[in-house]
Amino acid sequence: MSRGPWKGRDFLSILDLDREDALALLELADQVKRAPAEFSGALATKVAVLLFEKPSLRTRVTFEVGMTSLGGSAIYLARDQVGMGEREPACDVARNLDRWVHAIVARTYSHATIEELAREAEIPTINALSDREHPCEALADFQTIRECFGEEAVTLTYVGDGNNVCHSLLLLGGMLGYEVRVACPLGYEPAEDITREAERLAAESGGRIVVGHDPRELARGARVLYTDVWTSMGQEEETQRRRADFSGFQVNQGLLSLAAKGARVMHCLPAHRGEEISAEVMESPAAVLYDQAENRLHSQKALLLRILGGV
Amino acid sequence: MSRGPWKGRDFLSILDLDREDALALLELADQVKRAPAEFSGALATKVAVLLFEKPSLRTRVTFEVGMTSLGGSAIYLARDQVGMGEREPACDVARNLDRWVHAIVARTYSHATIEELAREAEIPTINALSDREHPCEALADFQTIRECFGEEAVTLTYVGDGNNVCHSLLLLGGMLGYEVRVACPLGYEPAEDITREAERLAAESGGRIVVGHDPRELARGARVLYTDVWTSMGQEEETQRRRADFSGFQVNQGLLSLAAKGARVMHCLPAHRGEEISAEVMESPAAVLYDQAENRLHSQKALLLRILGGV
Amino acid sequence: MSRGPWKGRDFLSILDLDREDALALLELADQVKRAPAEFSGALATKVAVLLFEKPSLRTRVTFEVGMTSLGGSAIYLARDQVGMGEREPACDVARNLDRWVHAIVARTYSHATIEELAREAEIPTINALSDREHPCEALADFQTIRECFGEEAVTLTYVGDGNNVCHSLLLLGGMLGYEVRVACPLGYEPAEDITREAERLAAESGGRIVVGHDPRELARGARVLYTDVWTSMGQEEETQRRRADFSGFQVNQGLLSLAAKGARVMHCLPAHRGEEISAEVMESPAAVLYDQAENRLHSQKALLLRILGGV
Repeated sequence: MSRGPWKGRDFLSILDLDREDALALLELADQVKRAPAEFSGALATKVAVLLFEKPSLRTRVTFEVGMTSLGGSAIYLARDQVGMGEREPACDVARNLDRWVHAIVARTYSHATIEELAREAEIPTINALSDREHPCEALADFQTIRECFGEEAVTLTYVGDGNNVCHSLLLLGGMLGYEVRVACPLGYEPAEDITREAERLAAESGGRIVVGHDPRELARGARVLYTDVWTSMGQEEETQRRRADFSGFQVNQGLLSLAAKGARVMHCLPAHRGEEISAEVMESPAAVLYDQAENRLHSQKALLLRILGGV
Repeated sequence: MSRGPWKGRDFLSILDLDREDALALLELADQVKRAPAEFSGALATKVAVLLFEKPSLRTRVTFEVGMTSLGGSAIYLARDQVGMGEREPACDVARNLDRWVHAIVARTYSHATIEELAREAEIPTINALSDREHPCEALADFQTIRECFGEEAVTLTYVGDGNNVCHSLLLLGGMLGYEVRVACPLGYEPAEDITREAERLAAESGGRIVVGHDPRELARGARVLYTDVWTSMGQEEETQRRRADFSGFQVNQGLLSLAAKGARVMHCLPAHRGEEISAEVMESPAAVLYDQAENRLHSQKALLLRILGGV
Repeated sequence: MSRGPWKGRDFLSILDLDREDALALLELADQVKRAPAEFSGALATKVAVLLFEKPSLRTRVTFEVGMTSLGGSAIYLARDQVGMGEREPACDVARNLDRWVHAIVARTYSHATIEELAREAEIPTINALSDREHPCEALADFQTIRECFGEEAVTLTYVGDGNNVCHSLLLLGGMLGYEVRVACPLGYEPAEDITREAERLAAESGGRIVVGHDPRELARGARVLYTDVWTSMGQEEETQRRRADFSGFQVNQGLLSLAAKGARVMHCLPAHRGEEISAEVMESPAAVLYDQAENRLHSQKALLLRILGGV
C-alpha cells in the first residue's frame, strides 16, 4: 500500500511507514552517517520546534544537532514554557506553530496529545516519545542492528517492560522480517493491539513475534538482547513495586551467556546499572548502546530530510 | 515631530512611533510576509537576547524564528536562568548584555524593569510585553486588520480588561485614525494617561476613542470585536473575582450579531474558550486569531529590520 | 614542557596551559576582539554543548554568542533537563555527547564532575566554573589587565574569599609573572595546593604570591583591586556567617585610596553593591568590570578557536 509522497507526512508510529519506506530511511541514515557534509545545506531556512513535556538528553540533542547540521535550526520548548493543556490547549499550540515553523517534534506523556497536535497542525508532527511508541528510537536501533549483522534478519530478545520502546521495536522488527521476542513479567506485556499488528506485519515479511515471561528461555540463541529501564519517566511512584516485579529480568553475564555467540546488548538509555542491566555487561564489548545513541542523530536526520523535503 | 533615525532606537511603547513610522513598519511587515527570502541575510551576525520573566509561546517563537530567518540568531533567557533583581540587578544585566549582543527583547512583569533595561543598555530594547503595554502585539493586530479591511480606518471594539494589550491598541488605533471603543467592567478601565494620550492622537489623526461599560452598546456596528483573557499571567489570585466581574463580557455569537456584517473577531491568545470567548465564535470564519499570531512573526521581523539596521 | 597540539585538548584548569599557551591565547583574544569578522566562519558546523548545573548569565551568553559568531552553534542544557547524577550518571552523559557534538562546556558544583566528563569524553571539555577553578574568567581578566597596563606585570590584590576565581587568578598571575596578593579573612584562604602551585609558577616566571589577612596592608600600592561575592552559588546557607566574617573586606573608596594612583577595580560579577564592593567604587571610572565581562566573549572565542581547531 503506497502512502503517497513523504514530504509533509506525520511520523507518529512505525505504522506510518511501510517496509519500503523503512528500508529507504535506514539506507539514507547510513548515507547521512558516511557523508554528512553532502547534506549540510539541505534544510536551510527550515525550523523545527521541539515541544517536550518530559526532559530529554538524547532526543533533544540529536534533533537540535540534526537540524543544525542540515542547515536549519531548532527551538526547544520545555513544558513550563508552553503549559500545553494548562496555559493553552494543544489544538491552539498546534495551530500557532503551524504558522511559523516547518515541523513539530513532540515528546508527550500521552500519545493522544501527539495525535491531537498532528491532527490540528498542517506541518508534519514527529513522535519523539509518547506512552505508546518511540519510533525514532526503533529506527536508530535497526540502523545499529544492521551495522552489526548486515541485512540478516536476526533474532532480537527484548527483556523488560512491554513499553513504548518495546512497541516500536515489535512493529519495526515485524515489518522488516526479524524475530522479535519479548520477555516480560506477568502484567507487563506489550499492548495487545500492538502485538497483533506486529504479528500481522511479521506474517507478511517472514518475521516472527513471540511474547513470553521467561527471559532465560527467550534469550536462548538470540543475537541481540535489548533492555530498558524498569520505571519510565512519570511512573516514579511504582518504582518499588516494579523493582520486585522485574527481579530476574536483568540483562547480565548469565543471561548473555545463553544468547548466541557474538550476541550484542542494546539499551535505549538512560540505564540504571545494577537494575535492568549489570555494570559488567554494560561496559563489555557486547554492548552497542552508545552506537545506538549515535545513530539517533543519523536516522533522525534521514527522517527530517524525507519529511521536510530535503531529499 | 521627527524622532531621528530608526536604527538603534528602543521600542518600549507605541508612543515611540509616530504615524509615519507606524505606517512604514506595517508596509514593511507586508513586504516581509510576501517575500521573506528577500530579507534572509539582512541581520547576519546579529544576536538578540530574549529576556523573559514570564513564559511565552507566540512572542518567543516569533522572535526566535524572526531572527533566524533574517540570518541572525536569538538566545532565550528564562527568569530562573538570570534571576534579574535577585541574583543580579537589572542595570547590571543590561550593561553586560550591551557588550555581547545587538538587542534586548524583554518580557517583564513591571514596565519599570523594561525602562531600566532600556536606560542602562546602549543597544536597543524591545518591549515584548510588560504590565503597561504590548506594542508588538498591536503591530501584528493592525497588520491583520489592514489585511481584512485595507486602509479603511474601521471601528474596533475591545471587550474586556483595560490591560496592556488594550493600551497598545488604543494608542496605535488612535494614532492611525481608527475608532477604538473599549467595553470593560467598572474598575477595569485602561489607565487614564493612556486613554488621554490615545485621545490626543485620535484628535490629530481623525480617529475616535470611546471607553464605556456596555459591551452590547459598544459592539454595535463595529467591524472588529477584540478580546483577551480576563486574568493575565501574574493575576491568578484574582481569577474568581474577575470571572464574576467579567460575566456579560464574553465575545459570543450574540454579541457578534450586534456588530457590523462581516465583522471579524480578534484575540491575542492564549484564549480560554467559554470564558472571554465562546468556542463557537473562536472556531467560526469570523475569527482571525491565527492570522494575528502569524503576523507577530512578520511585523516583528519588520521591527527588527528597522531597529537593527537591516533596511 | 610542551603539552602537544592544542586541538582537542581539555581546559579544566589554568594548569592545562603553560606560559607560552597562555600568552598566545591572550594575543589571539586581542586579535579576535579587534577583527571579529576575520574569524566568522572558523568553526562552521561545530557544536558545543553547554552543560550547566548552575544558572549563568555571562558564561552562558558569551559561549553561545562566541560559538555563533565563529559560525558554529551551541546547545544549552540546564540541570533539570539532563539530571546528571540522578537521571543519568555523568559518565554516560559524556559518552553520549561524545557522539554528537564537538565540545562540552561544563559548569558544575563539583570539580570532580568536570574531571569525570573530561575523562569519559573524547571531545574536549572546558571548565566553565567549578568549585575549584574558573579558568575562563582568569583569561578574560588578564586580557583586561593587559588592556589597562600593557605587558607590565603589575601587582593585583584579590580581596575576599579564596575561592575558584581566586584560584585561577593565582595560577595565571603566577604563571605570567605578576605579583598576586590575596587578602582574605582567617579560614577563607585559597586551597593550599593551589597556593603552592602558584608559588612554584611565580618562582619560574619572576612573579610573587602573597596570602594574608589584612586588606589595607595588602592593598597598599596595588595596581588592581579585585573582589568577588562573599557567598557563592550553593553556599546560601552560610550567608549570615560570611557577612560577619568578611566585614572589613569591602572594596570601597577607603581601600582604593591605599592602592596605587590610577589603580583599577575588578569584579567577576554578579556584584552585591554595599557588600563586597561599594556602589560608589563600582560606578567610578576605576572600575573595569564590564570590560572584564566583555572580554569573556573574546578570550573564550580564542580558546574555542584553539581547542576546536579553527586556527
